[in-house]
Amino acid sequence: MSITKTIHAYAAKDVGSRLEPYTYEVAELLPNEVEIDVLYCGICHSDLSMLDNEWGMSMFPFVGGHEVIGKVAATGANVHHLKVGTAVGLGWHSGYCGHCAACHSGDGNLCASAEGTIVGRHGGFAEKVRADAASVVVVPEGIDLKSAGPLLCGGITVFNPLIQFDVKSTDKVAVIGIGGLGHIALKFLKAWGCEVTAFTSSESKRDEALGMGADKTLNSTDLAEITAAAGSFDFIISTVNVKLDWNLYLNTLRPKGRLHFVGATLEPLDIGAMSLIMGQKSVSGSPVGSPATIEKMFDFANRHQIQPQVEMFPMSEINKALDHLRSGKARYRIVLTNE
Amino acid sequence: MSITKTIHAYAAKDVGSRLEPYTYEVAELLPNEVEIDVLYCGICHSDLSMLDNEWGMSMFPFVGGHEVIGKVAATGANVHHLKVGTAVGLGWHSGYCGHCAACHSGDGNLCASAEGTIVGRHGGFAEKVRADAASVVVVPEGIDLKSAGPLLCGGITVFNPLIQFDVKSTDKVAVIGIGGLGHIALKFLKAWGCEVTAFTSSESKRDEALGMGADKTLNSTDLAEITAAAGSFDFIISTVNVKLDWNLYLNTLRPKGRLHFVGATLEPLDIGAMSLIMGQKSVSGSPVGSPATIEKMFDFANRHQIQPQVEMFPMSEINKALDHLRSGKARYRIVLTNE
Repeated sequence: MSITKTIHAYAAKDVGSRLEPYTYEVAELLPNEVEIDVLYCGICHSDLSMLDNEWGMSMFPFVGGHEVIGKVAATGANVHHLKVGTAVGLGWHSGYCGHCAACHSGDGNLCASAEGTIVGRHGGFAEKVRADAASVVVVPEGIDLKSAGPLLCGGITVFNPLIQFDVKSTDKVAVIGIGGLGHIALKFLKAWGCEVTAFTSSESKRDEALGMGADKTLNSTDLAEITAAAGSFDFIISTVNVKLDWNLYLNTLRPKGRLHFVGATLEPLDIGAMSLIMGQKSVSGSPVGSPATIEKMFDFANRHQIQPQVEMFPMSEINKALDHLRSGKARYRIVLTNE
Repeated sequence: MSITKTIHAYAAKDVGSRLEPYTYEVAELLPNEVEIDVLYCGICHSDLSMLDNEWGMSMFPFVGGHEVIGKVAATGANVHHLKVGTAVGLGWHSGYCGHCAACHSGDGNLCASAEGTIVGRHGGFAEKVRADAASVVVVPEGIDLKSAGPLLCGGITVFNPLIQFDVKSTDKVAVIGIGGLGHIALKFLKAWGCEVTAFTSSESKRDEALGMGADKTLNSTDLAEITAAAGSFDFIISTVNVKLDWNLYLNTLRPKGRLHFVGATLEPLDIGAMSLIMGQKSVSGSPVGSPATIEKMFDFANRHQIQPQVEMFPMSEINKALDHLRSGKARYRIVLTNE
């Protein structure tokens, strides 16, 4: 294929290294592809995990960025539903196989052959990014483009379980960990009509959690407080990646309750079978959502004026932004903006 | 209250001791109670657990037996829907609080104050047993009374998840452990229309499992065989109480699959969060079912002519029967019969 274009990006040359301006060449757009002019790109913890090659699947030079908000710059010959200039989002997945049982069921996010936007290819820390049109979602008018990026990964990760597990407006729901994902979960759940409890170990986040939609907060490091909440929740979403006493949290579930993981704690969950059996409880996990669920999320966020709370950095200060994320001080999600 | 009647039973005087003939006095039947003439009573592993006080809640003298099939002998003043002579069943629960959220939702089996038939009171290893009428289920005409006892605990424990988790006829379902519970699960699942796989470590049970409804069998101790079954099942019911490599079994689930525990393994399940997240998988547990679900099970078993495979012992040989159960040689459930 003839080389047709140079894309300017920021890449890490090696595991964990600083990002540097980097250019790469791309061939002609494939028939099903879309090229996006990146306006904004959120930074997700998994960008750091990939940068640090924690999951052993990173390729270097590494261009992260999978919370892309941009405008369609060009479309492949077979793409007719997206027009140049349309505002679109691109998240963790940049393509699906299209023919497995998951894809056939509309669950592209569970496709075993789904392509990751920053896995073996270059992502949105760049002026442009490409993706299969099937993974590109139109951002409806009314959504604030500046702050919308984090919805594409962090947001959909906490919105998706509400759809998948049929969370009801009458449910009492708790969120463990009020950070990039957790703070969006609070906003969604408040708009969903639920009674919302925020578990956080951070004194400073308590009031903010209440402001973002929590009806109450509990200290996730206070055993007495958690023990006293026995039988309280229908659904708990854990966004943390540290080990907590999960049987203690199971005990805060009502009968038929669910403890759901979107944060990938690496230590085994060491759940007691009896904790599950006695109250017919479930423990589960889920990744990001399908394009259809992302569309549902955008519609819901739009109707309820839900925006991630973000800190903006120019793309050129990407290393400063990454340091800020690593420091744990981001409130609550970082978005890079292309000048 | 005046003592009105003596009930003959078999009781253990102490933890783990042999059962001996035992009589106890009962007062006048309470308004909501039913007295049942025990015709048959299945023996469940939890009778042994209670006899051995494994759960620290046994009282001695201990009269086990919670898979009761009998006829109504008498009814309390407020019981109008059950007539003397009606064939009925009594399972793990002998009463519910009736006013908690679970009871109000028809989930008496999840009532935190539910009374256990053999917990702090005397069960069905006896000529008579009493229970709150709310926990007594009519056995429909057509059900074989001799073999029906095990449906009341073992059977409902594996039937209930099919209802609770909406198992579909198009699902591919596996059963781990082909014993008292597992063999009934195979029969239910075959009639349910599922593709059924039996996981068993017993060479001798393979052919029997195929005869009882399994479409295929896998050796639960053969890592290569289990590994090769990756992505095969929508639902797995584990009836065993030993520790297996649960992450290996999670890997045999298809996306959105569920690994469900009705066997109470005591060791923690040490599930990896990532095993749950990647394929949106669930791990769960459940106890016995509600009266309404027991009724549904009876109807389903009746229409499909499903019977537990039982070995009969006269009630007077209860110690021999318990020894046989402990030996692990029961095929597949033991029922005591009152002469």
